[in-house]
Amino acid sequence: MTKKPVIGLLGGGQLGRMLCESAGPLGYQIAILDEENSPAKQANHNDLHVTGSFKDPAKIKLLASRSDVLTVEIEHVDTQVLEEIATVGVDVPDSQGGVTKKKVPVHPDWKTIRLIQDKYEQKEYLGKKGIPIAEQMAIADASADRKASLQEAATKYGFPYMLKGAKGSYDGRGNFKVRSPEDFETAIQQMGDQPLYAERWVPFEMELAVMVVRTEDDAGKLQKVMPYPVVETIHEDSVCTKVFFPPRNVADDMQTRAQKIACDVVSHLWGRGVFAVEMFLLKDGQVIVNEIAPRPHNSGHYTIEAVPQMSQYKAQLCAIMNDFPEDFEVVPRVPSALMVNILGGAKPTSHDELAELSRKLTNRSMDVYLHDYGKQSKPGRKIGHVTAIGYSSISKLVEMAHPLIASADKIRAERVGEAAPTVSASPSPKAAPLVAVTMGSDSDLPVLTAGLKILDQFQVPYEVRITSAHRTPHHMMKFAAEMAQGGVKVIIAAAGGAAHLPGMVASEVHLPVIGVPVKASPLLDRANARGIPCATVGIGNSTNAALLAIRILGTTYPEYAAQMKAYQTKMKDEVLEKDEKLSSDGWQKYLEAKK
Amino acid sequence: MTKKPVIGLLGGGQLGRMLCESAGPLGYQIAILDEENSPAKQANHNDLHVTGSFKDPAKIKLLASRSDVLTVEIEHVDTQVLEEIATVGVDVPDSQGGVTKKKVPVHPDWKTIRLIQDKYEQKEYLGKKGIPIAEQMAIADASADRKASLQEAATKYGFPYMLKGAKGSYDGRGNFKVRSPEDFETAIQQMGDQPLYAERWVPFEMELAVMVVRTEDDAGKLQKVMPYPVVETIHEDSVCTKVFFPPRNVADDMQTRAQKIACDVVSHLWGRGVFAVEMFLLKDGQVIVNEIAPRPHNSGHYTIEAVPQMSQYKAQLCAIMNDFPEDFEVVPRVPSALMVNILGGAKPTSHDELAELSRKLTNRSMDVYLHDYGKQSKPGRKIGHVTAIGYSSISKLVEMAHPLIASADKIRAERVGEAAPTVSASPSPKAAPLVAVTMGSDSDLPVLTAGLKILDQFQVPYEVRITSAHRTPHHMMKFAAEMAQGGVKVIIAAAGGAAHLPGMVASEVHLPVIGVPVKASPLLDRANARGIPCATVGIGNSTNAALLAIRILGTTYPEYAAQMKAYQTKMKDEVLEKDEKLSSDGWQKYLEAKK
Repeated sequence: MTKKPVIGLLGGGQLGRMLCESAGPLGYQIAILDEENSPAKQANHNDLHVTGSFKDPAKIKLLASRSDVLTVEIEHVDTQVLEEIATVGVDVPDSQGGVTKKKVPVHPDWKTIRLIQDKYEQKEYLGKKGIPIAEQMAIADASADRKASLQEAATKYGFPYMLKGAKGSYDGRGNFKVRSPEDFETAIQQMGDQPLYAERWVPFEMELAVMVVRTEDDAGKLQKVMPYPVVETIHEDSVCTKVFFPPRNVADDMQTRAQKIACDVVSHLWGRGVFAVEMFLLKDGQVIVNEIAPRPHNSGHYTIEAVPQMSQYKAQLCAIMNDFPEDFEVVPRVPSALMVNILGGAKPTSHDELAELSRKLTNRSMDVYLHDYGKQSKPGRKIGHVTAIGYSSISKLVEMAHPLIASADKIRAERVGEAAPTVSASPSPKAAPLVAVTMGSDSDLPVLTAGLKILDQFQVPYEVRITSAHRTPHHMMKFAAEMAQGGVKVIIAAAGGAAHLPGMVASEVHLPVIGVPVKASPLLDRANARGIPCATVGIGNSTNAALLAIRILGTTYPEYAAQMKAYQTKMKDEVLEKDEKLSSDGWQKYLEAKK
Repeated sequence: MTKKPVIGLLGGGQLGRMLCESAGPLGYQIAILDEENSPAKQANHNDLHVTGSFKDPAKIKLLASRSDVLTVEIEHVDTQVLEEIATVGVDVPDSQGGVTKKKVPVHPDWKTIRLIQDKYEQKEYLGKKGIPIAEQMAIADASADRKASLQEAATKYGFPYMLKGAKGSYDGRGNFKVRSPEDFETAIQQMGDQPLYAERWVPFEMELAVMVVRTEDDAGKLQKVMPYPVVETIHEDSVCTKVFFPPRNVADDMQTRAQKIACDVVSHLWGRGVFAVEMFLLKDGQVIVNEIAPRPHNSGHYTIEAVPQMSQYKAQLCAIMNDFPEDFEVVPRVPSALMVNILGGAKPTSHDELAELSRKLTNRSMDVYLHDYGKQSKPGRKIGHVTAIGYSSISKLVEMAHPLIASADKIRAERVGEAAPTVSASPSPKAAPLVAVTMGSDSDLPVLTAGLKILDQFQVPYEVRITSAHRTPHHMMKFAAEMAQGGVKVIIAAAGGAAHLPGMVASEVHLPVIGVPVKASPLLDRANARGIPCATVGIGNSTNAALLAIRILGTTYPEYAAQMKAYQTKMKDEVLEKDEKLSSDGWQKYLEAKK
């Protein structure tokens, strides 16, 4: 097909590899600067690649001469060269056999990359823009009195506080927790000559991250800053190991706030592309920004499957090429996702079990995807990841995907020499319930039996509970809240005389609730409080309640829609058959036969 | 990571490319035999590849010597060599510096490939196994009296009949429609010396195809034969141009039958892998088998996005490596998909518009994916494809994806020199309705107004119609059937005195139906016929009907669930606010202020 402009990529690691995997089908051409056989080059072969280090200015210029735009998969690059390429240009042959300068745009902007290379400056800048950050102060440089400076920080922030290397602390390397004055010497030795800064200790509840797309027009004017959903990230040994979408037990408005802060951050940067904004959620509900990555990021891998129409990699390509579709909205196509990094273990084969598990766990409610980076295994090295996407809640997904987590934890325990974690028996492979059935008293159970049989017949996974609106109101509310969290799609509630149960449940959850009146009562209106709908079926007709629940499930799950169609066809056929029999036999004989 | 066994692949075209795109993240190693820079080699770089033709026996043996299993992306390969490799082995160096024979298994089996290479023998074989096929007879070979043989076919089948080349008719090349005895000479000339056979003319309604996975244990015992969904394929100029999943207007039982036949076919073949079974659906409802492809196939490209957890390419890898997960069930993750091939046009840039469109059309209800094969454009050449997956019905998807179809049709018209088809104005980009609201008479409209406003407030696309159960029963039933086809997820029906409308609608569709009683009537039971559930809300309470519809949508669309949560929180906050005011102001002042 018609070839697209060439994207020059500094770095050919796993991020570059996944960028290439996304670019291939879309027809984007990528020229990679990295060693032969780097992960990205395994997935993208063409004659534009440059062999060498992405830190080598000459190689960067050679790459630029072959490219229409430059981008990075790692921020530790030479921004002087990038600035020169973008503003002065690189030498390329002209048509007269001479040499001419070609300016090659860099996205994200070299200014952004330069700012982000210095974590202290990065946060000073954001702080000035009104972004919430942890308090920080620069530590005197290695030639001056560092100890006095460390003492000053202690006076300012108390113990413990964090001592951080301002540059080059990729994946959290280069942090030192200062607990007392006795730590000063060790800290100075361990951190070496690098520029340092101190940061007030932030006791966070959870680490959050948001990917943000930033687009600019060709004149460099900011067009769009669009967030992906918030995720929860888990770090162990200063490396990201797991990502949960959505974050577990974080209120929606908190998530919206984190997205807003992430967008604010990115709006203050320069250039096009995707950016990861890593944040801390504090105990008091505050959200503060910890770090930015001006590129696709580990915390955004889940988008490959959860936002397949626009993964972070596709977004990166579209954004830097100024190809981002105008009206696009980020709508995840599944309600939950979980990413587990595969870090090389003690043995070269430590991770084989995890890779093997990824092949087997896919079921009706969860898809599991392996991403092998084509790297040799080394202890602690990121050599792949596994993403599970769930068709119900994150808590159910975590339950179903538990063997992946347990396996990753085992690899780590073995590597760091800890006792292997007691892996709880993997949860039974029974499907997560899709329908919850509840009643105020077991005396209502007979009324519900017919409906439960229908659910069995349609192979719908369900849960049955007794929760009385009057005798156990808290239990009932807790049940309702759990259902809303837990992946259940429809609730069926038997409604006794006062019909409070379905109405109350409906007020607690956002799910469709079907009330089955146990006996005649003006239930219609009683169960349907203002703004709190409750679907009601015939008196005692739990069959219809179950069938309605299945119709509702059919809007999400094609297999239930198909079963429902078959069920209805069967009912029709039965009537037609009877009709035929009646018309051929005559009503007298028909009635006779029925006796 | 730990390297997996090496799969040797004969052929590096687009099928090989997509196989490699699937293999990369899964860590499967593929050694490709084809020319340098073939589509597959662009997406997979390693030092195992062999440069040359997949028809060259020496190169095939070299490939085999580097591989643990061999497979094909095209069936026109030398099966003598494959047989030798599988049964006698290829020379490989042994540890003593000598040479030893290594047997390399071939999947699918070379016997299957050999059988399929001869279309006549293929169908003779299937016919003997009881598979429905079109009647056929061999035509005398080129040295004998072909004309007499053609006449014999005419006597047997009448005119027109099909004359087909038994071998090498990839993508339908090598067919001749014999209309009368005058055609005999031309047919003999055009078809040349190749082996021919005649086939009874089959006036089909539609072409169907089913991908089937076949697994065997290591002893060669058949384990599993598992079908993907049925698709409708469109051929133009004897090349597949479009694929629809599910086929349009084909009853479910017909689809089940086609899947059954496809599985029967594949159970009679040998070896592991995926197979495409192409069929004709005849006017009388018969399904007959037309052709088999022992490999991933154009009609299965849609699985990349519609069955992402196990695309035909992943299935091919898992099957041939005996890695297929035991309990896996093929469950498409979306209800509809549409594939449009990009065939090179009259100009090298003819297809640019189509590729560009693929970037722009993704919306809330449809994802569009481009697959560029990295090939140079030539008129009629398959250089890519676009898949749209729909979150509602195939008819709605076709409507939304219409610009893609129109663009592909334009490329073809330009290429074959026909007048450009009158491209109907692309449908307005308004979202497909998710809720249908209906009433028996416009006098019910005021009751429904509050609900319609709620739908507006939640930005739910809906459609409002008047259909009376008594005055326009056929119109009502037609409306209901259309809704069921058209992507609507929930129906709200106002129920007048007799409450027939919601009940009747519910009997026609498999969707959840919500009845709004217009005035008091024992609606609960009347609308809830046996086995036909109808969700009922409070009398005249269309607000709750709409809110219930939105809760149901929330089970599929996270954004509606989020809006519903926000709505409920707002309601709670309002009550809490009032309570606070009441308790601080006292009830007298509160009541005063309310006046």
